Amino acid sequence: MFLRDHWYVAALTSELTTKPISRQLLGEHVAMYRNVSGQVVAIADHCPHRGYPLSLGTVVGDNLVCGYHGFTFDCTGTCVAVPGQERIPSRADVRSYPLVEQGAWVWIWMGKSAPDMDALPKLKWFTETNNWSAVAGVAKIDAQFEYLVDNLLDLSHETFLHNGSIGTPEVATTPIEVETDEENNVVRVYRHMNSVDCPPFYSRTTGLEGKIDRWQDIEYFAPGFYMLHARIAPVGQPPLPDGSDDHAFHMKIFYGLTPATETQVYDFWALSRDFCVGDGEIDEFLIKMQTNVVQEDVDALNILQIRAAGIPEVTEVSVKIDKGGLAARRVLQSMVEAAN
Amino acid sequence: MFLRDHWYVAALTSELTTKPISRQLLGEHVAMYRNVSGQVVAIADHCPHRGYPLSLGTVVGDNLVCGYHGFTFDCTGTCVAVPGQERIPSRADVRSYPLVEQGAWVWIWMGKSAPDMDALPKLKWFTETNNWSAVAGVAKIDAQFEYLVDNLLDLSHETFLHNGSIGTPEVATTPIEVETDEENNVVRVYRHMNSVDCPPFYSRTTGLEGKIDRWQDIEYFAPGFYMLHARIAPVGQPPLPDGSDDHAFHMKIFYGLTPATETQVYDFWALSRDFCVGDGEIDEFLIKMQTNVVQEDVDALNILQIRAAGIPEVTEVSVKIDKGGLAARRVLQSMVEAAN
Amino acid sequence: MFLRDHWYVAALTSELTTKPISRQLLGEHVAMYRNVSGQVVAIADHCPHRGYPLSLGTVVGDNLVCGYHGFTFDCTGTCVAVPGQERIPSRADVRSYPLVEQGAWVWIWMGKSAPDMDALPKLKWFTETNNWSAVAGVAKIDAQFEYLVDNLLDLSHETFLHNGSIGTPEVATTPIEVETDEENNVVRVYRHMNSVDCPPFYSRTTGLEGKIDRWQDIEYFAPGFYMLHARIAPVGQPPLPDGSDDHAFHMKIFYGLTPATETQVYDFWALSRDFCVGDGEIDEFLIKMQTNVVQEDVDALNILQIRAAGIPEVTEVSVKIDKGGLAARRVLQSMVEAAN
Repeated sequence: MFLRDHWYVAALTSELTTKPISRQLLGEHVAMYRNVSGQVVAIADHCPHRGYPLSLGTVVGDNLVCGYHGFTFDCTGTCVAVPGQERIPSRADVRSYPLVEQGAWVWIWMGKSAPDMDALPKLKWFTETNNWSAVAGVAKIDAQFEYLVDNLLDLSHETFLHNGSIGTPEVATTPIEVETDEENNVVRVYRHMNSVDCPPFYSRTTGLEGKIDRWQDIEYFAPGFYMLHARIAPVGQPPLPDGSDDHAFHMKIFYGLTPATETQVYDFWALSRDFCVGDGEIDEFLIKMQTNVVQEDVDALNILQIRAAGIPEVTEVSVKIDKGGLAARRVLQSMVEAAN
Repeated sequence: MFLRDHWYVAALTSELTTKPISRQLLGEHVAMYRNVSGQVVAIADHCPHRGYPLSLGTVVGDNLVCGYHGFTFDCTGTCVAVPGQERIPSRADVRSYPLVEQGAWVWIWMGKSAPDMDALPKLKWFTETNNWSAVAGVAKIDAQFEYLVDNLLDLSHETFLHNGSIGTPEVATTPIEVETDEENNVVRVYRHMNSVDCPPFYSRTTGLEGKIDRWQDIEYFAPGFYMLHARIAPVGQPPLPDGSDDHAFHMKIFYGLTPATETQVYDFWALSRDFCVGDGEIDEFLIKMQTNVVQEDVDALNILQIRAAGIPEVTEVSVKIDKGGLAARRVLQSMVEAAN
Repeated sequence: MFLRDHWYVAALTSELTTKPISRQLLGEHVAMYRNVSGQVVAIADHCPHRGYPLSLGTVVGDNLVCGYHGFTFDCTGTCVAVPGQERIPSRADVRSYPLVEQGAWVWIWMGKSAPDMDALPKLKWFTETNNWSAVAGVAKIDAQFEYLVDNLLDLSHETFLHNGSIGTPEVATTPIEVETDEENNVVRVYRHMNSVDCPPFYSRTTGLEGKIDRWQDIEYFAPGFYMLHARIAPVGQPPLPDGSDDHAFHMKIFYGLTPATETQVYDFWALSRDFCVGDGEIDEFLIKMQTNVVQEDVDALNILQIRAAGIPEVTEVSVKIDKGGLAARRVLQSMVEAAN
């Protein structure tokens, strides 16, 4: 049971070229490519003739030609040519999916309803390249969507699973505050670590030394994406009453959570920062670090899935650190119920 | 549901030596080898003692000795020795299968009835080595038998799937004629491409230049084998009324289609030609080309099978190019019904 | 249906260090490690919080810290720390398993009942290092426990499966005697090969030449372990009436049979000898030879399991060599019935 009438990240913009890719999204096989006009296209990855994946075909002009018998489709999924005859059967059309290219991502609308353009995320931190520098990537996890939600909503795992990189002892010990915006299906988790040691990466890149205030404020926009607002500042200097916060350094950590199947999920990540803007070495460092961090999550969630498959009934013992994850589960559950 | 009372290719003759091989044919595990007298043998690949595969045993003289505990079988499957005792239990015999070695192939009769020797294919193009030169090979496809039938009966796919080698635009655009011989379970598909460009391979090997007539006439002898009669000739020079056709060049493309399981099939291929007879370089070229072509088919059918496994109900849109494949399906369906 | 109230080998002592290992035993995932005090510990490999394998955690002092969120357990499985709070939920404890370290092995008690210390095997041949030299190893077999029992109780397979190493023709042809001790669940199989050629290994290491008496006496202590008493002696010189047997050479071949799952079993092997004691080259030779022998068994049993999975109903033809295996099956069957 997938929540279809929402925007999900389907691909990094850099992944779509005139060589089609195949990706299973919300259980459906989707062929995606960029036609010669530069437009991104997503159609059902299944030729109606004999079921061959259209992603194995060839982009010719703005059309996609099936690699088995040459049935040809335009970017709306309409069949425009059939081999050996002039007449084109009306049943030969395939479904196309609305796509929107924005920043590092191509967003897709998998619902049967018309796409809700107002619901399309606006994430200025990843499009305003004058003030922000961003890096992005994607990983496929062989685990159910829900495990990734749990993982991202409880950052206390950083202390243990990512203790070689982003984890510090304070993350696990600092209490969290959780808010749920039920109307908009948003869960917010605040973790303010005040007067803690400045991690080496931040002291090197920001010039801050000694103790700092380090905030990790999560916003999970169920079901499809997540923002972690990381804030590093001198001790005791919160944002000003008008909201300005120029004396702090900010990192915006995005995750797009896109179910592939019932037991697989894509993890689209991106980091944007308002310091060292345009510094390619910092970009490379962050890509490498985050790739490692994500791989640690991939490994952990993959083994969770394997182990859970052998268990007749799941039991859990929840504690305070799980408040964010439990709130997210409640929001998702009510969305599923509302969709039925 | 396999059609058992028919001849199928079980192996290339070159595959059978005194080191047994194991092959699943029509769902049954078969051990095949050549005994020291040179005779080819096929018996059930399952020791009646504890179920060990007899193909892992050792040929000793004209017998096969099980590799686990030494139960010994002659070439009729009769158990002739048991370790540690003189008495041989009557239940210890295993089934043997009639084999016939002919040209490049060993044919097997998997039916419970007596083998129909009259039905054994006679394919002079692969045995008369004075006038014909043949090459042969085999591939295993992780897809159901029916997909290979579809593939071979509709050669319009050459234009797209094999466009780097044997595919030319005319194949897909030239109309076909289809005949069904219901009495003998034969489907014939005629595709006569007249006055078309001579493909490079043919111009190099035949001396023909410019435009040619290129015919592809299929005979599918359901269920187990298939002949593609390829004819290359100067434009407008059909065979003479008496059937002689010495002014043309002929390539006979054989396929043996042998189901392994419900979702796997062996694809035994062979090519024979009446030009450049005995030319080893041409042999090598053809082996390499055909191996690549078959691999393209293997890859395509494998992915079809994977994708179909995830689909609740198969839907298709058939067009004119599918007439041969649809005729073959009807013949196979009526054979299955007659066998029940 | 596993027989739980018995001792099984869980690991080689050398496998347990402060880096935990995970092993599935009798269907349960078990985390095993050695704490900083040197004590061996086995607890359920499943964090009660979110199900992460505890074997992926870190040993800190005498505790194990979960690698995902830091739940911490002592060596009795009691949860002693939870991140972000003082209170520890009582449901957070995990099961621990009694372990006993002895010779090359760590024995585990998987039953719910209290461990039966009297039932713990006493195998002096593997602990009295003054008079005996032992080597040990382990292999995982992707086949059901029962296949390994069959394999070990019928050594006639040595002649065929291990004909390149330990198999000689006499093993298969020499009749066996079988005794069943139903009260203690022990099956004994005697195979006395008298006046046979001395295998090269034994003549090289014992100095015996020409014909010898070679005895293979099996004791299978169902379900978990097995001793093969191999005895090499000059022809016609049995042990003395008082049981002393100093004129013979002895090899004690141990197998621990520990079910992993319904279709997987661990094969813990060890060899001990009372000749060439302390000779490291002989140790290395025996490790290499036995590793090869065990791999031959692994390969054979793996293929048996694969083949059996495709067979609707198992049929067998049993002969005299199977008497030991059939006796073992009867003992195991009555143990299963008694346990229900």
